[in-house]
Amino acid sequence: MRVAVVGCGVIGRSWIRVFTRAGHDVRVWDANPAAQDAALIWHESERLRAGTPGPMPQAAASLGEALDGAVYVQESGPEVLEAKRALYAALDAAAPPGAILASSTSTLDMTAIAAALPGAARCIVAHPVNPPHVVPVVEVLGGASTTPETVETTCTILRQAGQVPVLLNRYVPGFLLNRMQAALVREAISLVQSGVADVEAVDAVIQQGLGLRWALMGPFGVANTNADGGVREYFTRYGGSFEWLMNELGETPMFTPELIEEIGRQVDAMVGGTSHEVLRAWRDRMVERITTLKEQDTP
Amino acid sequence: MRVAVVGCGVIGRSWIRVFTRAGHDVRVWDANPAAQDAALIWHESERLRAGTPGPMPQAAASLGEALDGAVYVQESGPEVLEAKRALYAALDAAAPPGAILASSTSTLDMTAIAAALPGAARCIVAHPVNPPHVVPVVEVLGGASTTPETVETTCTILRQAGQVPVLLNRYVPGFLLNRMQAALVREAISLVQSGVADVEAVDAVIQQGLGLRWALMGPFGVANTNADGGVREYFTRYGGSFEWLMNELGETPMFTPELIEEIGRQVDAMVGGTSHEVLRAWRDRMVERITTLKEQDTP
Repeated sequence: MRVAVVGCGVIGRSWIRVFTRAGHDVRVWDANPAAQDAALIWHESERLRAGTPGPMPQAAASLGEALDGAVYVQESGPEVLEAKRALYAALDAAAPPGAILASSTSTLDMTAIAAALPGAARCIVAHPVNPPHVVPVVEVLGGASTTPETVETTCTILRQAGQVPVLLNRYVPGFLLNRMQAALVREAISLVQSGVADVEAVDAVIQQGLGLRWALMGPFGVANTNADGGVREYFTRYGGSFEWLMNELGETPMFTPELIEEIGRQVDAMVGGTSHEVLRAWRDRMVERITTLKEQDTP
Repeated sequence: MRVAVVGCGVIGRSWIRVFTRAGHDVRVWDANPAAQDAALIWHESERLRAGTPGPMPQAAASLGEALDGAVYVQESGPEVLEAKRALYAALDAAAPPGAILASSTSTLDMTAIAAALPGAARCIVAHPVNPPHVVPVVEVLGGASTTPETVETTCTILRQAGQVPVLLNRYVPGFLLNRMQAALVREAISLVQSGVADVEAVDAVIQQGLGLRWALMGPFGVANTNADGGVREYFTRYGGSFEWLMNELGETPMFTPELIEEIGRQVDAMVGGTSHEVLRAWRDRMVERITTLKEQDTP
């Protein structure tokens, strides 16, 4: 199956890896030839590191060449509505009939991007976590004109490529993932800003506490295992405490330069000189190992 | 070193394991002899399962016998202020001079529990995650009269037993852990209640997405690795989007019987007949494996 990867930033290059690893014939295009070259060089080093060859992706000389024969297009261009609209008009005009046009957008509504296009039915959001070749989840969400067949085929293609598609019923800002992240980050910053604890303490409570469970179960799964009678007993017993605590939570902070510098200073103290590149490489290889553990032992 | 475990519920019995595993001489007491027996039977099966013997804990015939010679007391009694006050008066009267009196309370303020006691200086909160023999983090927090020496010794004893003590500068309801959990649960429930996605989708975004990172890094560590320029660049670039999204987040839900039943129904569909006991056993052994992975490979 031929897949076109359009847009070769940090997200796009990782999608190349997802689809070649799945055995697909991947054509790659970026409006900026230097970005296209850089992505293919990154991909080659990643392919060698992983030791799972798969077919080589092909650089396309034009958008038309990238789309030629494609069954699925994964677009990861700039997050600007007007740019996305222009790109989708070009994709819809040039892609083979029936090819799915999926966007990595984390913020935009496909209704706003594709409403006016003849091929609006085949346009869809498939928002990954960075980087998708490491973190499996992909938020999938149609626009007003997207057909159920487009949704279904997108989920099938992603699932066959080893991702975990998650379906949203309608558009909300931030989808699921960035909303839940924002909820946690808001309270984390509030605790630091009000002096209850420092950055290192707040992070420790997640990475040595709550996060160990959340790598295995979401908040509902955790609630289900935290009471002997399951989730109904848990929320019946603790619902009142949750309501009370939820109304005590911190407000949205202002991201002033002073707040950002204070957080930066405390993060510097926490990481003690380890660069964020080293930390990120560790994070990504450990995520892969945890994912492997979860594949080897299921409940 | 002798440790007294006072209160033998699900938290107390797990503390027995933490301290015997660390090689301590543990004396166990509960006001209810049946609970004391049940905890010791659970502990024996857990000890055999883990294959790391350690010394046997001793059942005490009275609170005084449990406290005799103890250097550290871990109390896990009922979460009721008046009961806690009465228990701390008894502990302070009977424990050897200088023994630390640490409470597993998840909600109460040590100032309110111990203010009137002669030994208020040695009373402290050491709030674990359930179960502490699996999840390392412990929130540590003194009352108004607690001395820095008590805080320091408590952290040292916990650290030597393999836990990760995390220090709070002052009391807030829910401490760090339950506040951050409540922030995430609030948004998760809001997304389900407003029909944006179902329980399974929301949980998948955590356990196949955000949670994989949070097992390794807290929200500040993640922010630090999500931009090439580190945490300052991340919050400078995305602070505006975060502010906007944080102001869009859902409100505190009412935990009505209808909401709880709807969540229960969707959790039933998600787990497909797997009991919460089986899921909990899987969760706990996987948390141990992830913790081992993190010990073997550090950044």
